[in-house]
Amino acid sequence: MTPKISIIMGSTSDLPVMKKAADFLDEIEIPFEIHALSAHRTPEEVEKFAKNAKSRGVQVIIAAAGMAAHLPGVIASMTTLPVIGVPIKASLDGLDALLAIVQMPPGIPVATVGINGALNAGILAAQIIASTDENIENRLAEYKENLKKKIVKANEELKEVEFKFKTN
Amino acid sequence: MTPKISIIMGSTSDLPVMKKAADFLDEIEIPFEIHALSAHRTPEEVEKFAKNAKSRGVQVIIAAAGMAAHLPGVIASMTTLPVIGVPIKASLDGLDALLAIVQMPPGIPVATVGINGALNAGILAAQIIASTDENIENRLAEYKENLKKKIVKANEELKEVEFKFKTN
Amino acid sequence: MTPKISIIMGSTSDLPVMKKAADFLDEIEIPFEIHALSAHRTPEEVEKFAKNAKSRGVQVIIAAAGMAAHLPGVIASMTTLPVIGVPIKASLDGLDALLAIVQMPPGIPVATVGINGALNAGILAAQIIASTDENIENRLAEYKENLKKKIVKANEELKEVEFKFKTN
Amino acid sequence: MTPKISIIMGSTSDLPVMKKAADFLDEIEIPFEIHALSAHRTPEEVEKFAKNAKSRGVQVIIAAAGMAAHLPGVIASMTTLPVIGVPIKASLDGLDALLAIVQMPPGIPVATVGINGALNAGILAAQIIASTDENIENRLAEYKENLKKKIVKANEELKEVEFKFKTN
Amino acid sequence: MTPKISIIMGSTSDLPVMKKAADFLDEIEIPFEIHALSAHRTPEEVEKFAKNAKSRGVQVIIAAAGMAAHLPGVIASMTTLPVIGVPIKASLDGLDALLAIVQMPPGIPVATVGINGALNAGILAAQIIASTDENIENRLAEYKENLKKKIVKANEELKEVEFKFKTN
Amino acid sequence: MTPKISIIMGSTSDLPVMKKAADFLDEIEIPFEIHALSAHRTPEEVEKFAKNAKSRGVQVIIAAAGMAAHLPGVIASMTTLPVIGVPIKASLDGLDALLAIVQMPPGIPVATVGINGALNAGILAAQIIASTDENIENRLAEYKENLKKKIVKANEELKEVEFKFKTN
Amino acid sequence: MTPKISIIMGSTSDLPVMKKAADFLDEIEIPFEIHALSAHRTPEEVEKFAKNAKSRGVQVIIAAAGMAAHLPGVIASMTTLPVIGVPIKASLDGLDALLAIVQMPPGIPVATVGINGALNAGILAAQIIASTDENIENRLAEYKENLKKKIVKANEELKEVEFKFKTN
Amino acid sequence: MTPKISIIMGSTSDLPVMKKAADFLDEIEIPFEIHALSAHRTPEEVEKFAKNAKSRGVQVIIAAAGMAAHLPGVIASMTTLPVIGVPIKASLDGLDALLAIVQMPPGIPVATVGINGALNAGILAAQIIASTDENIENRLAEYKENLKKKIVKANEELKEVEFKFKTN
Repeated sequence: MTPKISIIMGSTSDLPVMKKAADFLDEIEIPFEIHALSAHRTPEEVEKFAKNAKSRGVQVIIAAAGMAAHLPGVIASMTTLPVIGVPIKASLDGLDALLAIVQMPPGIPVATVGINGALNAGILAAQIIASTDENIENRLAEYKENLKKKIVKANEELKEVEFKFKTN
Repeated sequence: MTPKISIIMGSTSDLPVMKKAADFLDEIEIPFEIHALSAHRTPEEVEKFAKNAKSRGVQVIIAAAGMAAHLPGVIASMTTLPVIGVPIKASLDGLDALLAIVQMPPGIPVATVGINGALNAGILAAQIIASTDENIENRLAEYKENLKKKIVKANEELKEVEFKFKTN
Repeated sequence: MTPKISIIMGSTSDLPVMKKAADFLDEIEIPFEIHALSAHRTPEEVEKFAKNAKSRGVQVIIAAAGMAAHLPGVIASMTTLPVIGVPIKASLDGLDALLAIVQMPPGIPVATVGINGALNAGILAAQIIASTDENIENRLAEYKENLKKKIVKANEELKEVEFKFKTN
Repeated sequence: MTPKISIIMGSTSDLPVMKKAADFLDEIEIPFEIHALSAHRTPEEVEKFAKNAKSRGVQVIIAAAGMAAHLPGVIASMTTLPVIGVPIKASLDGLDALLAIVQMPPGIPVATVGINGALNAGILAAQIIASTDENIENRLAEYKENLKKKIVKANEELKEVEFKFKTN
Repeated sequence: MTPKISIIMGSTSDLPVMKKAADFLDEIEIPFEIHALSAHRTPEEVEKFAKNAKSRGVQVIIAAAGMAAHLPGVIASMTTLPVIGVPIKASLDGLDALLAIVQMPPGIPVATVGINGALNAGILAAQIIASTDENIENRLAEYKENLKKKIVKANEELKEVEFKFKTN
Repeated sequence: MTPKISIIMGSTSDLPVMKKAADFLDEIEIPFEIHALSAHRTPEEVEKFAKNAKSRGVQVIIAAAGMAAHLPGVIASMTTLPVIGVPIKASLDGLDALLAIVQMPPGIPVATVGINGALNAGILAAQIIASTDENIENRLAEYKENLKKKIVKANEELKEVEFKFKTN
Repeated sequence: MTPKISIIMGSTSDLPVMKKAADFLDEIEIPFEIHALSAHRTPEEVEKFAKNAKSRGVQVIIAAAGMAAHLPGVIASMTTLPVIGVPIKASLDGLDALLAIVQMPPGIPVATVGINGALNAGILAAQIIASTDENIENRLAEYKENLKKKIVKANEELKEVEFKFKTN
Repeated sequence: MTPKISIIMGSTSDLPVMKKAADFLDEIEIPFEIHALSAHRTPEEVEKFAKNAKSRGVQVIIAAAGMAAHLPGVIASMTTLPVIGVPIKASLDGLDALLAIVQMPPGIPVATVGINGALNAGILAAQIIASTDENIENRLAEYKENLKKKIVKANEELKEVEFKFKTN
């Protein structure tokens, strides 16, 4: 299988958060790869990764990092593939990582999702691929339909919660 | 019973916080309903809810959401009923939800209470209804009188706390 | 005329901001009064104001203040009328006033709007009154319809803006 | 021409910022459309826009809004197209808009760029389309090469700046 | 004993924090009183307290509150005694209480100490009284000397901590 | 004249802000002195100042500084006189100076006023002295009475502002 | 052994954080000393320390403090040795300490590392010394090589983590 | 001349700020070089710069950048020379740049100075070099002595400022 999406994180300690992206890609059946490389401690490896990703068939990169989170921006500077940035909450409630990822200077965008937003990163990557892959688009639509059903069901169950003056 | 107040939250995970609003309405004997619908995952259901609330007799809507909390504002855009927004603390200490609810653009206000301020949302809703319902106004006045008594009593009990140089 | 809405601000220097609330009430034809009283420099006058508002026929109070903005909360502690708080931007981009108004302790809510959100305060006050006054409700609906028309018109005019690759 | 990218903003007052996205798309020769619609004041128009975008040929949506910026998230909830969110600086230095756009709940991602980051939104949209359009990819690569050349040239010119102890 | 210092807090739940001020006053042997009254729930009692404090012999008031902390400012508006404000950490890491206490408008100062800084409030109150009471000044000087000795002793003990390349 | 209050600032560039404290002391007729010394650039001079202030008759020190504002805390560590800290707005809207002054560790309090709150620093200093000086207390009471009159007068003048539906 | 680096902290409660700097210096074999002295409670001892450090052979000072963290700046004002500041997380997530250390006024820099960044302070101190000590430079290069190897190895191990659609 | 210090900035638009570092190095007579290279737009040039700096004789690097400021950290990852980071104020009052520079992950420190703190960066670089260069150390001591004299002189001139109750 050729990976369509590449997940890369600054440290394997980010895996419990990023697992949600991988689980989603499993569920929606998109082949992907996972790497742990540090923009600061392994710059050469990161460069090799970023420059080869496209030729290996990768269509979207999901990059996660915490604190002064440079990994997504560094990768974005070395490829024309869209890079999705996931700010990891490691200090200051994740605000430092969010700003260090989203506030990229003109010329090199990173498509940033919320703090620890690995699931949304996976969904966004799938949405990008779906524009040219009808199968994925159908599975995405089904996934979103299921999200909706869960909430409608939870809303139904809420009717069972009893209060004296509750009318529904 | 026709509900006078409608409580709606973005997810049933908000129920432990929002229960305080329901408990208050029970105590002050105002009929209400509870829904869990997501502005993002169930937009059609939210639209139906918002557009029908008034004709069902609802006079005030209490809407709670966390993170990029759009639910109160989305509902406010679809009704002329007053909408009370409750920012739920789910990330960044609730600051993201507070700003996403209170900083509405000109034209569509949301009456925002404090982070996780479900009890105050219930009281505010009762105050709005009380202006045209003397029974509720009396119960509200009694409720506030009780709040005061509790503090005066706590202040009395504080006299029992002993320090060497404490004089009261 | 009996005022239905009372606008009170901590200082006459807030008038340029709060004028938007007054202009809106003029436009929608709801009688109102305006006061400038300081929670800190004229506490007795504020107390008298708050305790008499209801008996004077006032149904909603709009209170604006900046910095450590206590005025809305102090008034809310002395009346059961709904109090709408407007944080005035005077320092720290208005964040201090926002937190000092919205983060009220359990028991005494303030219906907070956005920083310098005087217009929205006026609209919210009208929405509260509209629930028992069909005329106001109709004018409110008309006002919101006009807001919409302005945007639809602006959107139309946007078609005139020319770019080489713009298609609409 | 069928628009491949749709730019939508909450108000025409955002046009001076968003023009940078349009200028970039002109430069890189991707057909696009521009709309100004408000999530709160024209919810029906926004819904119609979001639900029809895909069938009109749009591949990526760029949505900009300030303050409690709901527009990008509301659109994302109504389409499976990737939605790029641009937080507009209108209050609190744009921090409110940033959080209201990026902190989306699980299930509905918005690909957020920096505050007032319209140019980066345009580039990101082009990167998404480039993955299946070699012409655009080539123009993107050329654009990035030019960015680089400009900096290398500026760096050269810096050699002319004189200081007594400057050695280069 | 006539109390020279009065400690007042918005709720008895603040007692565990404020106990440090009382313990210090005990240690330095200054008579004091403690009250729990809410600016919002018991405004009349607060007014009576503030207006009578001076005539009861109180020279300094220490007022503590959390969230939209109005108590210190409200008391300061009703007396010419110096009022020391203690922001209690109850939400947003105490930042809301800090701003709601320290950012008082011109005319009515509150002498603010750090978040949960009850001990420092006690010391500051003692410093104010010490300017006209030599006994207290001597005990204060002794207290500060002890603080110093503790650190010097801790510094000595640090010599016992062993590292291979530690030289002291 | 012996100075009762000493105003010290980190740089003469703070004088336009701190002038308000001096003007107030002039108005209320309390002798004072003014110094500009930097905790970081003139540590010896600051030490000499702090250690001699009391013996020169100074009863309260007002210390102002911006950015990483250490001056008030450094002085407080070298005297038992009460030290009032004024955070000067020089960067980050003054938030850095506020935190660097107010968040003092246990043992060494600084009585902090609001950002650029020089007038309030002067008033607070006067309140501290007033507790043992009836003349000053009377002038303070008069000053506060005048503040009140100004607002009551401004409130009166507000009656002249005309709106169609304004009732007062 | 003459210490080349001096670690000083505001309180022995900072030792668990600062131990990481000491462990690193042990590992890289640079002699160091440790002190605990408070800028506020032991100003004379701090002054003696700062003024004698250089003549004792110290080349770099690492100073750690929390809250209104003055220690690094106070020391920097009394020596021309480079001072590395470590903001300790004790309140407000460490943001107060960070700003109180990094935002030094012109003339007296502190080389600030991240919140609780003791390890990085140790590495930075070693880098400063390494510029004139080839042995240390070699051990630093080795240390960084090891960091890299650990990540490359972790990346290898990541290949063992199994997902259905994972391709590497 | 061989440069001892290298100043590098993300864009020539940072030159007006960074000029203060160059002016200081001129004044204190340390040879330096200036470059403008972007971590994101010219990654190869940055890599070449960072890897060759040491062999060119550079002893300290000063790197400045704004927004999601990656330049200092990226350079620090490619050299063992000490890297001083200057956060440039370009958005969010410079808070984004500060966090993106100072919050580096364990292993790769950046010696961060205050927002726009170019002068302090120059001084810090000189302090690092001074430890092995007595000439520079003497000039540094002289520079700091001059800073002190300027303040002492300004303090003297303050005596001329007249207030009625000013005593010095």
